[in-house]
Amino acid sequence: MDKYVFGVDIGGTTVKLGFFDVKGNLLDKWEIPTRTEEEGSRILPDIAESIQNKMKEKQISPDRVAGVGAGAPGPVDAVGVVHKAVNLGWGTFSIKETLENILHIPVMAGNDANVAALGEMWKGGGQGSNDLIVVTLGTGVGGGIIINGKVLAGISGAGGEIGHMHVEDEEREVCNCGNRGCLEQFASATGVTRLARRKLAESSKDSVLRQKEISAKTVFDAVKQGDPLAIEIAEEFGKYLGDALAAVATVVNPDTIVLGGGVSKAGEVLIDYIRPHYEKNVFLANRGVKFALATLGNDAGIYGAARLVLDSVL
Amino acid sequence: MDKYVFGVDIGGTTVKLGFFDVKGNLLDKWEIPTRTEEEGSRILPDIAESIQNKMKEKQISPDRVAGVGAGAPGPVDAVGVVHKAVNLGWGTFSIKETLENILHIPVMAGNDANVAALGEMWKGGGQGSNDLIVVTLGTGVGGGIIINGKVLAGISGAGGEIGHMHVEDEEREVCNCGNRGCLEQFASATGVTRLARRKLAESSKDSVLRQKEISAKTVFDAVKQGDPLAIEIAEEFGKYLGDALAAVATVVNPDTIVLGGGVSKAGEVLIDYIRPHYEKNVFLANRGVKFALATLGNDAGIYGAARLVLDSVL
Repeated sequence: MDKYVFGVDIGGTTVKLGFFDVKGNLLDKWEIPTRTEEEGSRILPDIAESIQNKMKEKQISPDRVAGVGAGAPGPVDAVGVVHKAVNLGWGTFSIKETLENILHIPVMAGNDANVAALGEMWKGGGQGSNDLIVVTLGTGVGGGIIINGKVLAGISGAGGEIGHMHVEDEEREVCNCGNRGCLEQFASATGVTRLARRKLAESSKDSVLRQKEISAKTVFDAVKQGDPLAIEIAEEFGKYLGDALAAVATVVNPDTIVLGGGVSKAGEVLIDYIRPHYEKNVFLANRGVKFALATLGNDAGIYGAARLVLDSVL
Repeated sequence: MDKYVFGVDIGGTTVKLGFFDVKGNLLDKWEIPTRTEEEGSRILPDIAESIQNKMKEKQISPDRVAGVGAGAPGPVDAVGVVHKAVNLGWGTFSIKETLENILHIPVMAGNDANVAALGEMWKGGGQGSNDLIVVTLGTGVGGGIIINGKVLAGISGAGGEIGHMHVEDEEREVCNCGNRGCLEQFASATGVTRLARRKLAESSKDSVLRQKEISAKTVFDAVKQGDPLAIEIAEEFGKYLGDALAAVATVVNPDTIVLGGGVSKAGEVLIDYIRPHYEKNVFLANRGVKFALATLGNDAGIYGAARLVLDSVL
């Protein structure tokens, strides 16, 4: 009898849910609101209820569900314990046990960025690779490192935090994490905007960006039009990100690097600005790594969550 | 009946061999010369012969040997294939198969720095940890990253090459690897000497180092005596190494960092100069990591090689 799996991506405002067969075909997806009130205590029961409703709707009994995987925005260790997820109001407790106690189905949990990386490996831009770095350039910079097909979660679930690698001693503004000079401050959508504002202020050069609202999109659109100032911004962005990825690749020795998140919608041009800096500084064994763009968009989390549980139960 | 295991550490001039019980007690150790002539084709047969002689001497039949582990100075992938080891004259071939064909005993092989890291985890400064970074500050800077008790070997065996992380854009001298500005150029014994020579040349300050032959040892001895110029050198060294370890820890999320190699003989003072830079820049989840000194010295390789094969055959 065919088996199924649920993948859940818990965000600060909505929870995305996916219903998959065990080969990873997405059969259905939907969303529910994330109720963060009461220290987020309703979130997991809401998810469990939504999954039970879907099982009724599809007329699937619990024994035909291989498991439920879940990604959460915080450090989640190898046994499914989350260590504070500020956006959800969560402290420290076992996501795995809490959901299993309601659903009586095997549950696995991980950090959302790590889980999304697994999704891109399985069904997205990293297909065919088992050893890859996935970096998500969104509002922040998230990362996931996958070695031999498994997420590098680390001792407290904080593995792969590429966005918080220190890349700039001279930075004076504080990152969300409390440090100064994190990659996220330069390579996220917000980071590109910051770089652009600074460049526009310090330069008197003409630029199409002076007539526009500044965003990562408008910057890279201007790059594609050949705007010299925008190209300088892209160069700075590429150096920060290329150098950081070179450092990570030098210790991880992957075959693929996948770029995702909103900024990556700029497309291949992004790689053009990252690769030269990467190649210049990376240890020789890692030259010529494959750069790829993420393809799953916002679905990476539910795919990866499904894969997470399939890895452990099948 | 008790079982035994051999650990082999292949260096450019000598091969170290260890005879262990499966609990990791070192029962005997010895060395043979590394015959690098004829493209190093004698090295593995010499090792096999030496192991067979030891088995005769100890009156141990092959069925009482769980396996032979070997570390080699080059990239060795997960299936035991070395991809060029310049110091040995080796090209690309399977260390595992070559030795197994002679010995008819299970063989596992790995990169020497990675294998030494495994040794320090098992019986050295990293005991009690399964998730650690080992950095060996010798003539060069070697590294090994261990996740969940296993070496991060990477796709071509070049994982953990911490010494070749790019840390300095302004460096003009070329590293042995061909790049410029690698950590090894600042944090190895040679690197500390370079930093010292530069500092002595650019400063007119008095220093006990002006009357001495410059080495990592004389520099850190002078630091312990409170020599201000030596302290400036140690600060520079500590910033390069502390920043690099912060970057690695931010993506690996270990619980322990072990410092080994000749430079680490300076002792705890080393950690005093590294830790402040590490703590300043590392992602918050990794603050307060345990720093430890390696304890196995030149035996780390044979211990780790023994562990490598035990991991796979027992």
